[in-house]
Amino acid sequence: MKKFQVITLFPEMFSGVFESSMMWKAQKDGIVELSTVNLRDFGLGPRKQVDDQPYGGGDGMLLMIEPLWRAVVKAKENDPTAKVLIMTPRGRRWKQSVAQEYSETDHGYIFICGRYEGYDERILELVDAEVSLGDFVLTGGELPAMTMIDSIVRLIPGVLGGAESALIESFSDGETLEFPQYTRPSDFKGRKVPDVLLGGNHAAIAKWRKEHSKTAEK
Amino acid sequence: MKKFQVITLFPEMFSGVFESSMMWKAQKDGIVELSTVNLRDFGLGPRKQVDDQPYGGGDGMLLMIEPLWRAVVKAKENDPTAKVLIMTPRGRRWKQSVAQEYSETDHGYIFICGRYEGYDERILELVDAEVSLGDFVLTGGELPAMTMIDSIVRLIPGVLGGAESALIESFSDGETLEFPQYTRPSDFKGRKVPDVLLGGNHAAIAKWRKEHSKTAEK
Repeated sequence: MKKFQVITLFPEMFSGVFESSMMWKAQKDGIVELSTVNLRDFGLGPRKQVDDQPYGGGDGMLLMIEPLWRAVVKAKENDPTAKVLIMTPRGRRWKQSVAQEYSETDHGYIFICGRYEGYDERILELVDAEVSLGDFVLTGGELPAMTMIDSIVRLIPGVLGGAESALIESFSDGETLEFPQYTRPSDFKGRKVPDVLLGGNHAAIAKWRKEHSKTAEK
Repeated sequence: MKKFQVITLFPEMFSGVFESSMMWKAQKDGIVELSTVNLRDFGLGPRKQVDDQPYGGGDGMLLMIEPLWRAVVKAKENDPTAKVLIMTPRGRRWKQSVAQEYSETDHGYIFICGRYEGYDERILELVDAEVSLGDFVLTGGELPAMTMIDSIVRLIPGVLGGAESALIESFSDGETLEFPQYTRPSDFKGRKVPDVLLGGNHAAIAKWRKEHSKTAEK
């Protein structure tokens, strides 16, 4: 059972996502275990402080080293061989080949979700990889963590059925082969499905689909 | 008030996210309105069917045109000037400049979340833009919709304070200027903050930060 643990100040963000759809089923089937570690529980003092101002000046607050460190140590106790990931703009760009690689490892993952302006750099001593979802700024690492976990979990053998797996294969080629698809009704308020798709001529259907395929816009 | 509506089969995925942190505050402050439209409510027949097999053959199921169409019409009734977005691998790649552009418009957005193998192509007649979060496959459009909404909402004037806004500016340059940051304690189990950051020499601090900056790995 592959474990995914997320260190976050907002564990309540994950409940709706971890309890829905494919991720819920993968847990129910005993293929993965998804959980959160509340960083607040490792905060300092009676106010459970987790952030403070940067040395040397600068705007905003940083996640302090000590609560983060203790949360990672705790997550490692739950899963000693797990690799630790942190989300940062300078990290390795997330893509299908990375999700594939992560899905094939025989260990779990611990995601550290940043908040505020960042984190104390010394936490990197415990981090195995820095990853980035893309060139955009988010309020925290929670949505990237959910997204990365979704993309990894669906690739673990047994999670998806055969039909869905086929889609993934075509995407993994790096060549996104998408053609227009249609389902019932064949005529929706005058908008008709192309005739060729309604017939049984497989060669003609394949030709039509190839001619109408588009690749991803970059 | 800018409205964001999400058409989805899994509205429960959104509750934890829309009710947390920055997105919750932006709603409470009356700057945005975030809501979901349950596609299942527009399903056909007693079983509320929303998907069917593709014409011309192929694996998997497609979202049918009629429930999608009716859901979009309903969302447009709530917000007649809203633009409709659909998430697809061939869409425009999401990045900070796109989030900025979307944050500055004077209308709302309706996100259509795909599921299964895709959707009936005819829905594109109602779609203003196709967008993509990146080169990876997810179980549905829900996580991309949340991510895009987060990145847009935080850029709307009044949502973030001044300090956080500054971070966004530096990222929007396209040049990610990140330097190591540290906060208390200055010595954590022998791991020390660089001396220069503990002093008050602003020129020396600026020089150290510049020398230690990294740009994003692509």
